[in-house]
Amino acid sequence: MLSNKYSLKEVFVVKGDYNADLLEQINNFCIEKNIKTGMINAIGAVQNIRLGYFDQNTKQYSTLEDLSEKGPFEIVHCGGNVSLKDGKPFCHLHIVVSDREGKCFGGHLMPGVKVFALEFVVHSFDGAELERGLDETTQLPLWVE
Amino acid sequence: MLSNKYSLKEVFVVKGDYNADLLEQINNFCIEKNIKTGMINAIGAVQNIRLGYFDQNTKQYSTLEDLSEKGPFEIVHCGGNVSLKDGKPFCHLHIVVSDREGKCFGGHLMPGVKVFALEFVVHSFDGAELERGLDETTQLPLWVE
Amino acid sequence: MLSNKYSLKEVFVVKGDYNADLLEQINNFCIEKNIKTGMINAIGAVQNIRLGYFDQNTKQYSTLEDLSEKGPFEIVHCGGNVSLKDGKPFCHLHIVVSDREGKCFGGHLMPGVKVFALEFVVHSFDGAELERGLDETTQLPLWVE
Repeated sequence: MLSNKYSLKEVFVVKGDYNADLLEQINNFCIEKNIKTGMINAIGAVQNIRLGYFDQNTKQYSTLEDLSEKGPFEIVHCGGNVSLKDGKPFCHLHIVVSDREGKCFGGHLMPGVKVFALEFVVHSFDGAELERGLDETTQLPLWVE
Repeated sequence: MLSNKYSLKEVFVVKGDYNADLLEQINNFCIEKNIKTGMINAIGAVQNIRLGYFDQNTKQYSTLEDLSEKGPFEIVHCGGNVSLKDGKPFCHLHIVVSDREGKCFGGHLMPGVKVFALEFVVHSFDGAELERGLDETTQLPLWVE
Repeated sequence: MLSNKYSLKEVFVVKGDYNADLLEQINNFCIEKNIKTGMINAIGAVQNIRLGYFDQNTKQYSTLEDLSEKGPFEIVHCGGNVSLKDGKPFCHLHIVVSDREGKCFGGHLMPGVKVFALEFVVHSFDGAELERGLDETTQLPLWVE
């Protein structure tokens, strides 16, 4: 287990842009504000969805492409954290969306999701930097000491 | 993109009332405490559910009424933000609930959902007021400058 | 309604251990750090799932065992609160996971869920202690005055 203690630096409440890429929008915001460690919470709606699923056996991400035709969707919840990857602020976000019947789809947020409406909160933390590097066991870019 | 910076003012941890209306309960709490900008996180259980879905083509909300018979449900996650609408604290909340088979349903939280058990955390922020107004593109009451 | 006001004491950003028990990992962290009141947000992936569903009529928890064979899963969101039960820090967590088709399953997080990868944020609050005790109406261990 790796744990760091932080204090709260600042909070941002943000309205995203119509037609923006969801992941890029949040990620670019954190880069622009130089948020090195933080937490993200978002709700809203998207025009399509692209979810990642990590196969724990083959150790590879697959993208669920076919869901895109079931949209548009509500963003029921999108959340995760900000840390550093290759020295730059990097958002790791998971998302749950729902369709017109209330059915939910979830996974790792991939690029290529078009915003319809987006409201997100960023908590930015003060403390030690957390950097991602290859984790041998999982083959994921996890936090390294 | 519209973004404001805040500091954390106070945090409330709240136990909701059995049989209360879920949205009203959280919304009234924010009005009573005069929370103008904030973040909500809730878990618990509800006796029924009423989910909204915004049709991005017709620009109208529909309410998924038929789900109510599938309950009762766990509140797996209910979250969103507090800002101002018509000058008053207003909670915009999305919710995911699950039924006895673990199946999830999600969407925009509508009035008419009866609490069984409710535990929520409100983060209240200090900074510029965020007011909702009609957004031309989406026809949603989004934050305006 | 029971509500307490808090200030933010500290924030922890934590990487959980491969193969650890998800609930135990988060719960033990809070015990070790003596976090009496707080909020949890987690994402990651698990090797299996065990979800609880509270039957509001019989007033009993059932565990959805059969879902375990559908994994492994992404942790789309796991969140909840920390308070005291029997005088010790106790995490009440709900979780949504998704399978390789993006399908979501959710409920009350039970023991017996094996971590594949885990990233969680703990907000620890300063203020009055919140203790759980039997709630007559729901027969759940809710916060008591």
